[in-house]
Amino acid sequence: MSPKYALGIDFGTESGRALLVDVADGSEIATSVYNYSNGVIDEFLPDTDIRLEPDWALQDPDDYIRVLQQTVPAVLAESGVAPADVIGVSIDFTACTMLPAKADGTALAQLPEFRNRPHAWVKLWKHHAAQPEANRLNEIANELGYTFLNRYGGKISSEWFFPKAWQILDEAPDVYAAADRLIEGADWVVWQLSGEETRNSCTAGYKAIWSKREGFPADEFFKALDPRMEHIVDEKLSRTVQPLGTKAGELTKEAAHWTGLKPGTAVAIANVDAHVSVPATTVTEPGRMVIIMGTSNCHMVLGTEERLVPGMCGVVEDGIIAGLQGFEAGQSCVGDHFAWFVNNCVPAAYEQEAQEHGVAIHQLLEEKAARLQPGESGLLALDWWNGNRSVLVDVDLTGLLLGATLATKPEEIYRALIEATAYGTRIIVETFEENGVAVDEIVATGGLPDRNKLLMQIYADVTGRSIYIPESSQIGALGSAMHGAVAAGAEAGGYDSIVQASRKMARLRDEVFHPIPEHQAVYDQLYAEYVTLHDYFGRGANDVMKRLKALKAEIRASE
Amino acid sequence: MSPKYALGIDFGTESGRALLVDVADGSEIATSVYNYSNGVIDEFLPDTDIRLEPDWALQDPDDYIRVLQQTVPAVLAESGVAPADVIGVSIDFTACTMLPAKADGTALAQLPEFRNRPHAWVKLWKHHAAQPEANRLNEIANELGYTFLNRYGGKISSEWFFPKAWQILDEAPDVYAAADRLIEGADWVVWQLSGEETRNSCTAGYKAIWSKREGFPADEFFKALDPRMEHIVDEKLSRTVQPLGTKAGELTKEAAHWTGLKPGTAVAIANVDAHVSVPATTVTEPGRMVIIMGTSNCHMVLGTEERLVPGMCGVVEDGIIAGLQGFEAGQSCVGDHFAWFVNNCVPAAYEQEAQEHGVAIHQLLEEKAARLQPGESGLLALDWWNGNRSVLVDVDLTGLLLGATLATKPEEIYRALIEATAYGTRIIVETFEENGVAVDEIVATGGLPDRNKLLMQIYADVTGRSIYIPESSQIGALGSAMHGAVAAGAEAGGYDSIVQASRKMARLRDEVFHPIPEHQAVYDQLYAEYVTLHDYFGRGANDVMKRLKALKAEIRASE
Repeated sequence: MSPKYALGIDFGTESGRALLVDVADGSEIATSVYNYSNGVIDEFLPDTDIRLEPDWALQDPDDYIRVLQQTVPAVLAESGVAPADVIGVSIDFTACTMLPAKADGTALAQLPEFRNRPHAWVKLWKHHAAQPEANRLNEIANELGYTFLNRYGGKISSEWFFPKAWQILDEAPDVYAAADRLIEGADWVVWQLSGEETRNSCTAGYKAIWSKREGFPADEFFKALDPRMEHIVDEKLSRTVQPLGTKAGELTKEAAHWTGLKPGTAVAIANVDAHVSVPATTVTEPGRMVIIMGTSNCHMVLGTEERLVPGMCGVVEDGIIAGLQGFEAGQSCVGDHFAWFVNNCVPAAYEQEAQEHGVAIHQLLEEKAARLQPGESGLLALDWWNGNRSVLVDVDLTGLLLGATLATKPEEIYRALIEATAYGTRIIVETFEENGVAVDEIVATGGLPDRNKLLMQIYADVTGRSIYIPESSQIGALGSAMHGAVAAGAEAGGYDSIVQASRKMARLRDEVFHPIPEHQAVYDQLYAEYVTLHDYFGRGANDVMKRLKALKAEIRASE
Repeated sequence: MSPKYALGIDFGTESGRALLVDVADGSEIATSVYNYSNGVIDEFLPDTDIRLEPDWALQDPDDYIRVLQQTVPAVLAESGVAPADVIGVSIDFTACTMLPAKADGTALAQLPEFRNRPHAWVKLWKHHAAQPEANRLNEIANELGYTFLNRYGGKISSEWFFPKAWQILDEAPDVYAAADRLIEGADWVVWQLSGEETRNSCTAGYKAIWSKREGFPADEFFKALDPRMEHIVDEKLSRTVQPLGTKAGELTKEAAHWTGLKPGTAVAIANVDAHVSVPATTVTEPGRMVIIMGTSNCHMVLGTEERLVPGMCGVVEDGIIAGLQGFEAGQSCVGDHFAWFVNNCVPAAYEQEAQEHGVAIHQLLEEKAARLQPGESGLLALDWWNGNRSVLVDVDLTGLLLGATLATKPEEIYRALIEATAYGTRIIVETFEENGVAVDEIVATGGLPDRNKLLMQIYADVTGRSIYIPESSQIGALGSAMHGAVAAGAEAGGYDSIVQASRKMARLRDEVFHPIPEHQAVYDQLYAEYVTLHDYFGRGANDVMKRLKALKAEIRASE
């Protein structure tokens, strides 16, 4: 039998990436990236002078089609692989990234009559203009005593599905009415590929308040939000939600024409970029936490039972690996933190030194910071420059740096910021463990592990967990390809489960960051101080951060 | 009668400055500066390979003589004033800057046999190596129930007279034994000028635990420190302490030879640079606080009755103006704060912008910060980068910055640091007022008022007090010249009191910084938050700063 291949397509914020991998061992054969021609739409609707309001962020559904048209033919051409040997295709997506569509799958934004209506376009994950709707939703759910909020750390985010849907209804009821379907971009692309409208358990669970046991919130709840939304699930969504790795359908002729793949190729249920990465890092069982470290941190861990862990982003059965509970938590400011520091706080002398040594400024800072011992700077920070996602779920918290003296150096602050994010991760880890979700080891992926070994060692020392790194640096696309192989199934040369696919197709590097006991001893002391400050400023003893933020908003509004 | 002149000589940390002024109106006729040839001695004893221990800071007494020899002839030559028309000379000095001397006034360091003994040299105010002695002194005073500590905010500083004297005894008992006298540099220079050994009420009161009513601590106290010190006051100091403006004596022939002045010219009792400035800023009465704003802030205010104000540096009758109580408080990190920020936290892009606009980086930051409204940054800082002098008297406190977000800009941090020092001043002002010492207005002098109008306005807005600026920018030397005119007396063409001299010779500028009510309203809110954090971290609720500092010291010691 000739080698078989699977195709994963990772739809990011700025671009889409196709990766063709060998199903036997996951080796990466060819890759291709397409930068969305309309990118992130946050100022004007394309080809119009229609200005978007603050906090809006849209995308163009045609950009997703262009990814299919550009990248898949490119990897086929580059690899020379015969389309017949590509047994399955799967995608992963940002989420919640959602759009209104007609019953035939046409996105409203693709129709000329809706082209100039902002609410007809795709609302990207970082569209934050539905905050009023999110606030009302949380209030009403609390008032009426709905317990589903407990599965989401107590709060639904403005980024999620129903606040965004409700914003359409609030601000453009005709667009809402014209939408036969409201659907995740992930599921919409699978629809375009396979002709089948499906809903995946990952976005439904983490972003649309669905659970395998309880389904969606009751119609009464939606009615309480707005009587016109009473039947939103039956009218515009679907109560059929499918686990990850399931075959959604087969490639249509049209999609085959776009991509150069064979009609009939297996298409998997869609997935989310973070969650699809978990099996691609070798993790398919409880006990090992996967952290995707980039601008922010996303923590995922599996369990056998549902646990309501305070401050987590969500727990979803079948949300990561079919048959298991998938727990997610997050830190809203990690790489962004270091970028802020480099852009705003690094003196000219350091920039010059970096140039003279021919290294990037981050690298210079890492080198200088690596020469410090834990505790040597006397500094301690709270990593809340962008609020706190887990475990406090409070966007109004702000950053804190304590311990500075006239001898404090930039690399000491830089290290303190890294350490602060590590303490933040440790609180998440400990909160999981206290609530019955084991975290014995960590697997780290995303942009940071490759770029900053000091950060990896600090996370190991602070959390007291060994940290492993997956071999692949295209972890989302690899995870998708693995799901494509599962959708194809063993008979077609793929796998019957993601666990099997993971064993064959995913690998860890030899390099491991083990905790250094002497560092752990110091970090245990510093972490205790961090927890005291975390609770003092974060749990109501002194709400100074919120008062300062409110004052700032008041003053800016009066200008 | 021809115009009369007075000469003031200001002995600073790096140099001495002579200023010749017209006694009638204080107009400044000529000035000259001499940079000490041996400067601050903190690495090696001059012309030796004898390395000093950390925290040592010495000076060469011959440098003070060279100031007299260089600067006084220079101002006479520049001005063309006849020596006979110079009616009085007075000096001011850093303090406590002290030295051992022989009974004839020779400094031990001037004797060849002591030239290579570090303890024979002048201990500069910022010699911090007597901290163990200061700690023991405070402990013993507390144990034995001496109440004099209350006049000094509860603690004697390692910078002061008896810790430094005790260090000599501890580490070089033969030097201690050879010292017939232990004396402030200020009084030693007056001795060299006039041939009279005198002790001024300012250094005696603020630095040597003397009070007009109680004198020095009892011999039993010194005996408790070390039996060999039992009679230190009678053996090596003097119980005769004279108020400021008193005539110490007349210029000797030798000093006349050094300076070109006439023998017999009136020489005033010595003074301290900060305290001598007060009448030179027009302040000779209660109600107006003088703040000398430089690397640190020194706050001085007068009162009619002794009040034990928590955390002040000292209260001394006759300490600033004869007949009044002089209160002093301090902030240990002001200009140093902004210098630290500029050196460590300002990005290259800002340096470039400053260069392009042809302005200093401080000025660019001030311009940018001045465009912000109070409260607009959402930031709040504790100004403890160099510990806290008043009102907490705790060198182990450290800096804090709270409220940072990913949108925080350098100028916002810069402004927050300025505001933090203003809140620190407000706590001092309010502590004085709560304890019966009125502070109705502020007069600001030192290096900062000329350089940073934004800082002045913020201090006015935060404290709710109008801030005035004296006309002279050589305020210490002017204050000294005024005291020289008082030592000469009215009959010789001078004045009979410093109050009269101040009325004639000192002036304020027309420019006044009045509080802006809308700013005050916002700053009242921010100040309340500052006080909460100040008390939480500074008064024992959470000693995290001290624990981090102790951990840092432990780790550095183990390296």
